[in-house]
Amino acid sequence: PAKSQDKDQTHLEHPNLILTKDGVNRIKSNLENAPLFKQTLEVTKVEVDAEMANGINVPLPKDMAGGFTHTQHKINYATMQKAGVLFQITGEEKYAVYIKDMLMAYAKIFPTFKKHPVERSYARGKFFWQCLNDSNWLVYTSQAYDCIYSWLPSEDVTYLNKNLFKPYADFISIENPQYFNRIHNHSTWGSVAVGMIGLVMDDDDLVNRALYGLKTDNIDPNAKDNDGGFIKTEGQKAGFLANLDSPFSPDGYYTEGPYYQRYAMYPFMIFAQALHNKKPELKIFEYKDGLLIKAVNALLNLTDADGEFFPLNDGQKGMSIYTSSLVSAVDIAYFYGNKNQQLLSVAKKQNAVQLDETGFAVAEAIHAGKTAPFLKESINLRDGSNGDEGGISILRHNYNDHSLALVYKYAAQGLSHGHYDKLSFSLYENGDEVLQDYGLSRFVNVEQKNGGGYLIENNTWAKQTIAHNTITQNETSHFNGNFKLGSENHPELYVFNVSEPGFQIVSAKINSVYENSQFHRTLVMFKDSISSNPFILDLFRVTSSERNKYDLPFHYFGQVVNTNFDITTPKTLHPLGSKNGYQHMWVEGEGNADQGVMQFTWLDNNRFYSITSAANTEDKYVLTRMGANDPEFNLRRDPSLIIRRQAKNTTFASIIESHGTYNPVTEKADNAYSTLKDLKTILETKEYTAVSFKIEAKTYVFILANQDASKQKEHKLNLDGTDISWNGPYYFNTIK
Amino acid sequence: PAKSQDKDQTHLEHPNLILTKDGVNRIKSNLENAPLFKQTLEVTKVEVDAEMANGINVPLPKDMAGGFTHTQHKINYATMQKAGVLFQITGEEKYAVYIKDMLMAYAKIFPTFKKHPVERSYARGKFFWQCLNDSNWLVYTSQAYDCIYSWLPSEDVTYLNKNLFKPYADFISIENPQYFNRIHNHSTWGSVAVGMIGLVMDDDDLVNRALYGLKTDNIDPNAKDNDGGFIKTEGQKAGFLANLDSPFSPDGYYTEGPYYQRYAMYPFMIFAQALHNKKPELKIFEYKDGLLIKAVNALLNLTDADGEFFPLNDGQKGMSIYTSSLVSAVDIAYFYGNKNQQLLSVAKKQNAVQLDETGFAVAEAIHAGKTAPFLKESINLRDGSNGDEGGISILRHNYNDHSLALVYKYAAQGLSHGHYDKLSFSLYENGDEVLQDYGLSRFVNVEQKNGGGYLIENNTWAKQTIAHNTITQNETSHFNGNFKLGSENHPELYVFNVSEPGFQIVSAKINSVYENSQFHRTLVMFKDSISSNPFILDLFRVTSSERNKYDLPFHYFGQVVNTNFDITTPKTLHPLGSKNGYQHMWVEGEGNADQGVMQFTWLDNNRFYSITSAANTEDKYVLTRMGANDPEFNLRRDPSLIIRRQAKNTTFASIIESHGTYNPVTEKADNAYSTLKDLKTILETKEYTAVSFKIEAKTYVFILANQDASKQKEHKLNLDGTDISWNGPYYFNTIK
Ligand SMILES: [Ca+2]
Ligand SMILES: [Ca+2]
Ligand SMILES: [Ca+2]
Ligand SMILES: [Mg+2]
Ligand SMILES: [Mg+2]
Ligand SMILES: [Mg+2]
Ligand SMILES: [Mg+2]
Repeated sequence: PAKSQDKDQTHLEHPNLILTKDGVNRIKSNLENAPLFKQTLEVTKVEVDAEMANGINVPLPKDMAGGFTHTQHKINYATMQKAGVLFQITGEEKYAVYIKDMLMAYAKIFPTFKKHPVERSYARGKFFWQCLNDSNWLVYTSQAYDCIYSWLPSEDVTYLNKNLFKPYADFISIENPQYFNRIHNHSTWGSVAVGMIGLVMDDDDLVNRALYGLKTDNIDPNAKDNDGGFIKTEGQKAGFLANLDSPFSPDGYYTEGPYYQRYAMYPFMIFAQALHNKKPELKIFEYKDGLLIKAVNALLNLTDADGEFFPLNDGQKGMSIYTSSLVSAVDIAYFYGNKNQQLLSVAKKQNAVQLDETGFAVAEAIHAGKTAPFLKESINLRDGSNGDEGGISILRHNYNDHSLALVYKYAAQGLSHGHYDKLSFSLYENGDEVLQDYGLSRFVNVEQKNGGGYLIENNTWAKQTIAHNTITQNETSHFNGNFKLGSENHPELYVFNVSEPGFQIVSAKINSVYENSQFHRTLVMFKDSISSNPFILDLFRVTSSERNKYDLPFHYFGQVVNTNFDITTPKTLHPLGSKNGYQHMWVEGEGNADQGVMQFTWLDNNRFYSITSAANTEDKYVLTRMGANDPEFNLRRDPSLIIRRQAKNTTFASIIESHGTYNPVTEKADNAYSTLKDLKTILETKEYTAVSFKIEAKTYVFILANQDASKQKEHKLNLDGTDISWNGPYYFNTIK
Repeated sequence: PAKSQDKDQTHLEHPNLILTKDGVNRIKSNLENAPLFKQTLEVTKVEVDAEMANGINVPLPKDMAGGFTHTQHKINYATMQKAGVLFQITGEEKYAVYIKDMLMAYAKIFPTFKKHPVERSYARGKFFWQCLNDSNWLVYTSQAYDCIYSWLPSEDVTYLNKNLFKPYADFISIENPQYFNRIHNHSTWGSVAVGMIGLVMDDDDLVNRALYGLKTDNIDPNAKDNDGGFIKTEGQKAGFLANLDSPFSPDGYYTEGPYYQRYAMYPFMIFAQALHNKKPELKIFEYKDGLLIKAVNALLNLTDADGEFFPLNDGQKGMSIYTSSLVSAVDIAYFYGNKNQQLLSVAKKQNAVQLDETGFAVAEAIHAGKTAPFLKESINLRDGSNGDEGGISILRHNYNDHSLALVYKYAAQGLSHGHYDKLSFSLYENGDEVLQDYGLSRFVNVEQKNGGGYLIENNTWAKQTIAHNTITQNETSHFNGNFKLGSENHPELYVFNVSEPGFQIVSAKINSVYENSQFHRTLVMFKDSISSNPFILDLFRVTSSERNKYDLPFHYFGQVVNTNFDITTPKTLHPLGSKNGYQHMWVEGEGNADQGVMQFTWLDNNRFYSITSAANTEDKYVLTRMGANDPEFNLRRDPSLIIRRQAKNTTFASIIESHGTYNPVTEKADNAYSTLKDLKTILETKEYTAVSFKIEAKTYVFILANQDASKQKEHKLNLDGTDISWNGPYYFNTIK
């Protein structure tokens, strides 16, 4: 392997990967100015000392995730990484000895077995059941190694490089090309693992392999991984830079969704930091207009008021900004970005910092009073490497401590963890879900639930269209649930305008979810002067060459309070259908459109909500509950309201309100009734869709130009004898 | 009407009912020493000023609860009471004028109509649909009247006494004997209303009527109120003192349960304060060994860690110590009790005080740093006027910020709001329910839900035995759901011992819930050295002359994680049965006892729980969900596990554990598995019941003497070849 500099000289320059010699000196001299760093350091010392008291344990691999050997090897790399930091900052040699002893134990058993015994992963690992976790090991351990590299005798370095680290790097790359050469978070971890250890060893071959991938890999173009996604697609590049390029949009949105972006941010950011230190000529933090810094900002925006990530695509509810990968991401983005003071308030909430110069800078700045609140404004995040594959819009209304957030997903497929959920939305009030995205069907690391892995119901329910707040046509999921077809298509943004706080709008279209149908959904968050909360207008326009059955669910929570339609409740419960997620929903009640408008009021988290929807005379309403055909009790028993309509062309016009509160201490119900009336679609042509509705005495009209989004275009209509003219793709006003 | 003193003299002595002249002076001179009082005063002033800006509105009665006229009259009395206080403390005359103008408006319309137009209550009211609310009006308004009594010209006093207050007091008493002469919280309010206004007017007839009831009432012994309870029982007394006597036990437990005790405490305490001021010879706070002070303490103990009341009998979840009646109760109990410093921490949490001398004393003491934490220890609260009608035991385990509370209900019927729930329990961890008592079926003041009143399902579900964590026999509720039979019987306490923190026990029996069966349930909360949480041992012994079907539910929350028995899930859902609550439960799954022991693990609030239960070979397990036969969607869709056993004599031996945690940020599951094994009943004779179980390597034995609870009694047994001897009703130890 080629080495860029004299062996002895490079040996003595460590640490220089994440921690640097200068950084360590600065930290040691200024610790009192950075209380949050000091606190994190003290907590870390307690953790590491406790673990070190258990001795060195490097077992031969045996168990799956959650089992003993798996857990022990995870503890080992996490502890080594922290011990390396402690060695450098405190100077206490015991930490270096601990790392050395452990690495020697790993090096000793490394050649004694080929792979982990469990044959379940498409990329079977070495100490772990899957290469992904071996990559985790290398990413953390390379940092520990860097911290003791100069302290170790050079013969130990030579020994470990040759007998442990080089073969380990080769294992996860050359020996597992199907793992290493993908565009996927697996390959991100793989390339960062190889790159980090390559940087430590100053092994340019490894570093280049990491940056650019394996030149040849012989991967079968039809091969799939355990989640059902293709290993590789034709013409794709490989390696770290390709993995940085491909899944992120120019706005920093990671196509797999926030849950996996959270997981991927750490290797991206930590390797970027290492590259900045050791290969500054790459200017990695400037790459693609500061993409990495934007990615952190995008991810922080993809959260509710509690800092919990929206569970889009495969995402487990409850994951949040408090996770350790976000601690690193925020600190690295602060340091290598613009020292954005808003990030300091996030770090403050996290109550921990990365134990290096970036975390130190954050802690110093917090102590110096530079913290500014992190403001989550309405935002549009494009999807796709070039930003032209749809996106996610978040419309937010913030007022003092109270917020509403409407999350509109008109994004691309999202790789193998993506869902069939085009033009779906979810709604949050403060930190609570109001209309949910179900998330994934998995209990991560709960061993009793399929070993903590994905459940069957993730495919049969969670990914299916009916599980989302969007239209399912003829009980068939978007793209017929076909991953290839889904991956080849995406929605297009039609309108996005949040410049007026009292009126925010996003609109998107897609014509490929069903062969003969065209979907166009527009969401508006508007605030009138009377109500304390904004209203959400949902205009979902469908055109088709065929007559279809359109099902539009609203996945709410809590207790039904009132409906303006009669509900028939059956004596026994039957599933709503037989496949594509329909088999998982019990029919608890059914009703018909009695009146021109449907109104459904429910109570959740001591708030009154209503959906008001303009009705067609043959519309049906189905009240469902999840949990049918669920023999393992894997699904939550959450309720839904489905509007079911038979039509060719139609518009679903609905308004969602959070209009009231209940106080169980005073037993007062305030504004328990919607103030909305007379919602109707007053115009449905190829060119225009118009609705009107009344809030108390005021009548509103909203008109959408369906075909032309140009802001300059002039429009003229006569509605009910009144001439209306305006510029741009929409019109919204009170009449009389 | 006789007057006890010269008219002019008494006219000038006001206020002297709740606020007193001396009290007012003390408050005005020392306001700066009582910030919480000052804060409450300022908040009250803002509220009252805002309401006064709306002008005087005294509408003719028309609406039910929640409707306009009902709400307006409520606002009126609440505002008048506060305005009275503000007049006295600030001296601003506008408050007195406001009260006077409003009272004159009431006096003007009072004679113009007979009653409220709605014919729904068994005690139709005057300004409100039911006399209960008219009584509320008088209780609050009498305080306002007392505050302006001396300020008003005597001719106005004469006018108001004659044309409004005296006839109003007569209306709710003489004209509504079925309302006034009961032992019931309605009559408590009625007698306090008459008593308070009687004291203000110095009308001894009214005061005596309040204290001792109407001498004759001609109430039909079979007449019932709207909740299905008898109006009057033979031989009962009437009036305030009888209502204080009868429903409270000597421990201060109010037989209707915490939700209604919360509602009743205000009239009890406020009238007691008024009697203390105006009829000190009654020594009301010493009555029955300080019953009123004990009652406040009992009520504060009947809460979870959030201060929310256990929803026993008819009780709505969410009612808590923060309600205004508890603010008054705590302050009055502090002042007239022993200045118990623990009450100050409750007042501090409430962040408000009663605006009188009692609240002032509380606020002063808090400011002076006298606050002590309110410690909720394990407690036994007897039921019944003489304390001999069963009771409620609460076993608590407190450790730092963490607590478990086991609530065992072996109480009497509880009057018309009581449930058929003998020997049931509920379990709390911190502020969360783990195994619930369902509470009531009602959405109080949510007008869309039957006008905010009780729902049919309160009778068909919430009161039924199967809705509770106790045994239902042959799908029939306790006492066959017969109120009269239920009211004539109650359980007996067998054992209660909480003297050892690591081992707490309560045991109770009842032989009357089913004619031929005898029930004996023992609950033990014990802490072993290994586990972080205590275990709960539940021994439910049934004997019978017949073979019966015993159903024992555990009403849990959250997601099933694992069972050690196979579950068959049906393709369609059917109700569990046809009546007595069974019609309301869907059967989601069924299983059989495969092994000697059943184990059921679930995840709720990010905690892992297990129930382990010794199985008979023919046992069946039913997984159910509430919501069948619920056409109005009034029931929550909560899950249950039912152990179903056919037997004559049997013991259900179960252990409940909170053994693990899940962290969705770190995605770590800790202690997701129960460490319990081999739970079995090893002895079941008339004299003794014994169980053994293993926790890790230790084997435990618990033996209960079934017949003799004497602490001195010596027992000797041979179990599995080992001689065991001990004193007292139980034995608990590790063997080998
Ligand atoms: Ca949340
Ligand atoms: Ca609670
Ligand atoms: Ca409960
Ligand atoms: Mg989803
Ligand atoms: Mg929720
Ligand atoms: Mg109950
Ligand atoms: Mg709960």
